[in-house]
Amino acid sequence: MDPKSIVDKMMQLDAYSQWMGINVLHIEAGACTLSCLVSKEMLNGFGIAHGGISYALADSALAFASNSHGQQCVSIETSIAHIKPTQLNDTITANCTEIQKGKTIGRYVVNVTNQHNELIARFNGTVFRSEKTW
Amino acid sequence: MDPKSIVDKMMQLDAYSQWMGINVLHIEAGACTLSCLVSKEMLNGFGIAHGGISYALADSALAFASNSHGQQCVSIETSIAHIKPTQLNDTITANCTEIQKGKTIGRYVVNVTNQHNELIARFNGTVFRSEKTW
Amino acid sequence: MDPKSIVDKMMQLDAYSQWMGINVLHIEAGACTLSCLVSKEMLNGFGIAHGGISYALADSALAFASNSHGQQCVSIETSIAHIKPTQLNDTITANCTEIQKGKTIGRYVVNVTNQHNELIARFNGTVFRSEKTW
Amino acid sequence: MDPKSIVDKMMQLDAYSQWMGINVLHIEAGACTLSCLVSKEMLNGFGIAHGGISYALADSALAFASNSHGQQCVSIETSIAHIKPTQLNDTITANCTEIQKGKTIGRYVVNVTNQHNELIARFNGTVFRSEKTW
Repeated sequence: MDPKSIVDKMMQLDAYSQWMGINVLHIEAGACTLSCLVSKEMLNGFGIAHGGISYALADSALAFASNSHGQQCVSIETSIAHIKPTQLNDTITANCTEIQKGKTIGRYVVNVTNQHNELIARFNGTVFRSEKTW
Repeated sequence: MDPKSIVDKMMQLDAYSQWMGINVLHIEAGACTLSCLVSKEMLNGFGIAHGGISYALADSALAFASNSHGQQCVSIETSIAHIKPTQLNDTITANCTEIQKGKTIGRYVVNVTNQHNELIARFNGTVFRSEKTW
Repeated sequence: MDPKSIVDKMMQLDAYSQWMGINVLHIEAGACTLSCLVSKEMLNGFGIAHGGISYALADSALAFASNSHGQQCVSIETSIAHIKPTQLNDTITANCTEIQKGKTIGRYVVNVTNQHNELIARFNGTVFRSEKTW
Repeated sequence: MDPKSIVDKMMQLDAYSQWMGINVLHIEAGACTLSCLVSKEMLNGFGIAHGGISYALADSALAFASNSHGQQCVSIETSIAHIKPTQLNDTITANCTEIQKGKTIGRYVVNVTNQHNELIARFNGTVFRSEKTW
């Protein structure tokens, strides 16, 4: 299966990414760009987007980018730094690129930006590349 | 303000934690325990809970535990390892404890377990302790 | 091979751990305790131990604890928070415990303390458990 | 003080960076490039460079790059992924760049490469920017 078909299949069954209203802007083997709009349900007690929202967008980007090579991948370790608060109605965009594509390990970095192109979060993810294929 | 009042106030305004159906099981200065039920909207394309769900539960636990001392805290750096898949209708519980309470920095670890008391995720969080109080 | 023999073999060939003067205080399957004395060569430009010293002690502890099950393990991802400065002639002790022993992944936490039993660093490590045995 | 003078001063007093034979190849505000030669004393029990060596080189790069703005900085959180083994007599180079320069927080990434320009380690570091100046 090609990168686009794999991500279409993953996205179609992904109830949570649908709840978030995630748009797939770009996909290629090892990389992808996703975006979503920050809604009222996504805000925390400070009136800004909950940290779980930018994490989830970045984590979906990691899943799509790493699986798009055709080998099934599972997340081993992820980290995120929340750099700038995100407001209601902001559009946030996660851009995932590949640092390493090893035999069993893949490493990715995701920059999450807002509509003003400001960096709001930086995410690093490591995946295990299984032998199962899509 | 005491720990319980601070968390009540944070929780009351937190639309996303409410969407997740988070229950505050225990709160004390520097520690807390939260739980939620995994619903259909929380599943990803593999039919298991999206990584963003256990992250968000742990991140709320970090926010409540660190702010409960009375000083306002913001997250600097968080990481999570997803250890075991979580299924529909599982109840997941995040237990946050304090590693360090410094002048400007606080460090916390969160264990996320399921109803069988199996570790499903392990989260580490570092916060900046501001001078603003609740 | 038993845990102690594996670590003896690893330690015997480990020129850098020898340069550091590492003592193996305790070893069992999945856990170990190491210590060393902070010498003049280990200090940085602030007159305290270089961050690389407590990292290296913790990283050796990770290697010994994870390999001691008998399966060869390689580090995937490590992180360390430096909590308290370490002075010349301090004795620092790294205590490594196992969080998870999966089929292919192992997870460990290492607390590094000084002779006053103060936490000076906290380290997390994830290893890949290969099929090669000792 | 300018970036070069700050790093000269830090390096001059840094016994451990001197033991490692660190060369400062480039320094500017918020960035630097360091290298060193892997000697026999730096090898572990597998006959490759101990993980503490590439960590220490990257950690020195973090210290020099972050302090070179003139404000004293201390490390809050660092992580490193060891990607490729390093052999005796390899020359390793750490290139540190700035992701964020906030009021109190700075974030940096360090790529460590060998003489064949292969990525051997990837390091992320977060510092606290104190009010003390050089």
